[in-house]
Amino acid sequence: MASPCLSFFFISLLLTTIAEASHCSIKGLPLVRNITELPQNDYGRGGLSHITVAGSVIHGMREVEVWLQTFAPGSGTPIHRHSCEEVFVVLKGSGTLYLASSSHEKYPGQPQEFKIYANSTFHVPVNDAHQVQNTNEHEDLQMLVILSRPPVKVFIYEDWFMPHIAAKLKFPYYWDEQCLQTPPKDEL
Amino acid sequence: MASPCLSFFFISLLLTTIAEASHCSIKGLPLVRNITELPQNDYGRGGLSHITVAGSVIHGMREVEVWLQTFAPGSGTPIHRHSCEEVFVVLKGSGTLYLASSSHEKYPGQPQEFKIYANSTFHVPVNDAHQVQNTNEHEDLQMLVILSRPPVKVFIYEDWFMPHIAAKLKFPYYWDEQCLQTPPKDEL
Repeated sequence: MASPCLSFFFISLLLTTIAEASHCSIKGLPLVRNITELPQNDYGRGGLSHITVAGSVIHGMREVEVWLQTFAPGSGTPIHRHSCEEVFVVLKGSGTLYLASSSHEKYPGQPQEFKIYANSTFHVPVNDAHQVQNTNEHEDLQMLVILSRPPVKVFIYEDWFMPHIAAKLKFPYYWDEQCLQTPPKDEL
Repeated sequence: MASPCLSFFFISLLLTTIAEASHCSIKGLPLVRNITELPQNDYGRGGLSHITVAGSVIHGMREVEVWLQTFAPGSGTPIHRHSCEEVFVVLKGSGTLYLASSSHEKYPGQPQEFKIYANSTFHVPVNDAHQVQNTNEHEDLQMLVILSRPPVKVFIYEDWFMPHIAAKLKFPYYWDEQCLQTPPKDEL
């Protein structure tokens, strides 16, 4: 017979495995979900609160994905691009969209700046480098973010003059990392 | 020289044409748009206020479309299905989702009922017949609706026991009608 200590260890391991499995699957989740009760995290990015409202990895979406993101004053997204459509709906606060619409050159180049504000909407053209920042020092910026073709494959730039080919692929993206396993690379 | 009356007619015609063209195109629209200033209409459906926040026909979206819809007490969508993904985010009010998840039979059948409420989210499985209604008699129901593969092709049922093959295709859908011209049928 296993010792009580060993049994406790195996039960703990089992419970942890179940918890992780359910966190990465829609099984057991109600059809109608309270957004305020969904997992939220900063995923190591200061000032961010991210919630996957309807996701490819967790909820089995194949064509669209929806996030609720809140950015504290001074925080924002990296400079990045992706080959999918993205629509923003600003729910609270204000900030700035930086958009390099001349992304057909070798690097993004100096971006245009657009003020964004509560009840505004905008979409980012496919593959245009962009960044959204909460430039209002007094208020959080909260947005619903809608993307096509999930899970998102993001190329990140260190600055606006980094060549497109040097931008670094971040895949799986921060919030997809825990549940989306990339196939191991061929070691040959 | 044309008479003043005739000149007035041609100028009116020209202005109407320009107005219609701009209504159906993103040209001239700012990148960041105030949702409260976008066109809203009931499109002949009592109790509805529909705004296309980011649309295929007007804004050139190819993969996702976003609507802001407000339903007065007692109003709702028809019973319908579509072969695209759909995510709802309830912003205000409450109501009921009717979902026939056994839509693989010959007809939708008696739907399940789910309570929906402010800050809740749900998605409708592709091709499942469904209906959303504001069943709260005291408050408007406001939702952001996100769909893939726009413009939407909707099959409408008169009741839950109408065979799938009898459901009527409504294309273009109500708010796409003005700007989306279907190609004329071959008369041969």
